[in-house]
Amino acid sequence: MVSQKYKDMLGAKSVIRELSEWAGRRAKEIGAENVFDFSLGNPSVPVPQEFTDRMMELMQTKDTMELHGYSQSQGILSVRQKFAEFLNKKYDMNYTAEHLFMTTGAAGAVAHAARVVTQPGDEVITFAPYFPEYNHYINQTGAVLKVVPADTKQFQINFEEFDKLLNPKTMAVLINTPNNPSGTVYSTETLKRLAAVLEEKQKEYGHDIFIISDEPYREIIFEGVDAPYVSKFYDNTLSCYSFAKSMSIPGERLGYVAANPKCTDSGLISVMCAQISRGIGHNCPPSIIQIAVADVLGVTSDLSVYEKNMNIIYDTLVSLGFEVVKPGGTFYIFPKALEADSVAFCKKALNYDLVLVPADSFGCPGYFRMAYCVETQKVERAMAALRKFVETEYSM
Amino acid sequence: MVSQKYKDMLGAKSVIRELSEWAGRRAKEIGAENVFDFSLGNPSVPVPQEFTDRMMELMQTKDTMELHGYSQSQGILSVRQKFAEFLNKKYDMNYTAEHLFMTTGAAGAVAHAARVVTQPGDEVITFAPYFPEYNHYINQTGAVLKVVPADTKQFQINFEEFDKLLNPKTMAVLINTPNNPSGTVYSTETLKRLAAVLEEKQKEYGHDIFIISDEPYREIIFEGVDAPYVSKFYDNTLSCYSFAKSMSIPGERLGYVAANPKCTDSGLISVMCAQISRGIGHNCPPSIIQIAVADVLGVTSDLSVYEKNMNIIYDTLVSLGFEVVKPGGTFYIFPKALEADSVAFCKKALNYDLVLVPADSFGCPGYFRMAYCVETQKVERAMAALRKFVETEYSM
Repeated sequence: MVSQKYKDMLGAKSVIRELSEWAGRRAKEIGAENVFDFSLGNPSVPVPQEFTDRMMELMQTKDTMELHGYSQSQGILSVRQKFAEFLNKKYDMNYTAEHLFMTTGAAGAVAHAARVVTQPGDEVITFAPYFPEYNHYINQTGAVLKVVPADTKQFQINFEEFDKLLNPKTMAVLINTPNNPSGTVYSTETLKRLAAVLEEKQKEYGHDIFIISDEPYREIIFEGVDAPYVSKFYDNTLSCYSFAKSMSIPGERLGYVAANPKCTDSGLISVMCAQISRGIGHNCPPSIIQIAVADVLGVTSDLSVYEKNMNIIYDTLVSLGFEVVKPGGTFYIFPKALEADSVAFCKKALNYDLVLVPADSFGCPGYFRMAYCVETQKVERAMAALRKFVETEYSM
Repeated sequence: MVSQKYKDMLGAKSVIRELSEWAGRRAKEIGAENVFDFSLGNPSVPVPQEFTDRMMELMQTKDTMELHGYSQSQGILSVRQKFAEFLNKKYDMNYTAEHLFMTTGAAGAVAHAARVVTQPGDEVITFAPYFPEYNHYINQTGAVLKVVPADTKQFQINFEEFDKLLNPKTMAVLINTPNNPSGTVYSTETLKRLAAVLEEKQKEYGHDIFIISDEPYREIIFEGVDAPYVSKFYDNTLSCYSFAKSMSIPGERLGYVAANPKCTDSGLISVMCAQISRGIGHNCPPSIIQIAVADVLGVTSDLSVYEKNMNIIYDTLVSLGFEVVKPGGTFYIFPKALEADSVAFCKKALNYDLVLVPADSFGCPGYFRMAYCVETQKVERAMAALRKFVETEYSM
């Protein structure tokens, strides 16, 4: 018989998917260019030419069996070495290849990291607003995800509420900075305070508490924003990265877990990930993508368009009277809806062909997310629709 | 704290890996060309030019964001449609895109299929000799793998022993034909009998029993061998495939689960796999590889060298007095060792620079595996070493 557990999961259709399907249908009626779809976090800038060139060169010059051959289960050794060197130079760290585990994107990275540092029944704490897939990554390990309510003033960390959830079963804290969906970046002050709390609790509970740091937006940082490297502040940090957003290659599924060389059992994390991988059939990410990305490390897509879009949207939102924190990075912005029920708010927006995502599933009801990985010209046209929507539905 | 469960798994070093490491060290001493390494099932024939050409063409002509963009979690729809059509034509089936789930190789396919049809505590039966990674795929689901002792006469199925293991907890039967490590192919007669037994047991137990059919060697079939498509014989079949062996692209991690359209809940299997995938971070295989392979479906590497190698080795083994079943496909052969302790036998072989794998971990002690994905010229030279080894160590 098919497993009831997974069958049951089919019932819960994601709001984002429903919205995206609506947008697809509407596009057929009025043309895609007239649907202002801010629902999906799909990169909208071309893949760097350097990556394409390197892929072509590899296929023209390398032995095909070597190029497309099995990777080590931790990832190709020479690739991991290059990644370690790159991170060391960029963030003044001391990684070696043995601290790195290559994954199929950030999803693979967070899911493996969570399994390494938890046992069934343990608790993992995250902070609202948060990426709803975290529920799946953590539930599958048998651990339990606990959510700290949002600091809606700055979308940093609500430390008072955090303190209430910490307990001896807390084995990991899952953070995401720059943050999806808020677009904010944890400051040096926030990270220092987080590290201090965890250091203290580790002593009090007599066991490690790991930070699992989900960082796929690490390269999308706006002007003048302080964006510190999380692992610098706290030894027991597992940094999870993906090239999906910085290189616009989400479909190629390349990411990694980088264990801080000073963390507990730092030399075992990567090989333990490989053991986990064997059993679930994740195994290693595609060889040619590993090799090509390692050869162009540091290259990114032209990410400047995201900041341009953000400024246009932020200014419009402020002028329309929205309560909104200015994003420090990513391609998301997270305003407060103009009525308490943000689902109702977003439904009304559809009448203006604006596809916005209510933030209930991000653990922050009353807010909504706009993903502005959209052409700037379209963003500009969308602002007229947004203005009309607000003025028609919410003016006194 | 890091998970003791995965930490413990690090202790058990695989025999194959130890042998392969020995071969690497020895190669440095006497040159790789003088080490006759038959330990690894790594394809030894070039990737088809059509695949490389298509990859290049895609990168030159397609929009990069589309080409490297997110795949649907079940796999790209147009890709799944092409795969369904291909299978329908080749095997006279009725698949549609909804019956297919794209995976990172056969490992991903078998691991997902096992999760779909079992709950913790259920039993899955497989037949020795079997691929030792099955233990990991099944254990991770919480189900228990039960192993039927080998039919050492023909390496088909030992039905008497199978009957003893069947019980109401049996939810799936995991088969692998053409078989690693035996090289044999299940005949029409074997598959008919297997289907009849399972049909009867389904009625008796009042629940489904699925066949999970692991078929990465499906395209490597030798002359005159009857190699039927498993799913034709039994409706509750989930066919698991990988392009690793047929196209020599093991590192690119592309495979699929194809649910027989007549199986129970056939329309749900693929979407359930996608739900499983979300939680473990497997997600979808690389987009560009999905697209390129779908565009050259039916093309394989030149696989004829494996049959050539098999014939050379088989004839030599027979002439040296080995008990061995002639393989019908794959790139493995599975003779009986010349002493009861096949580990001791394989250790002695190292003195002749022959790297053979004892079959204890395949659930069939007393036998050994040779993977002949090796250049033919080297196979020929290895036969002299094999002759010398046998004549020196085992002649009366």
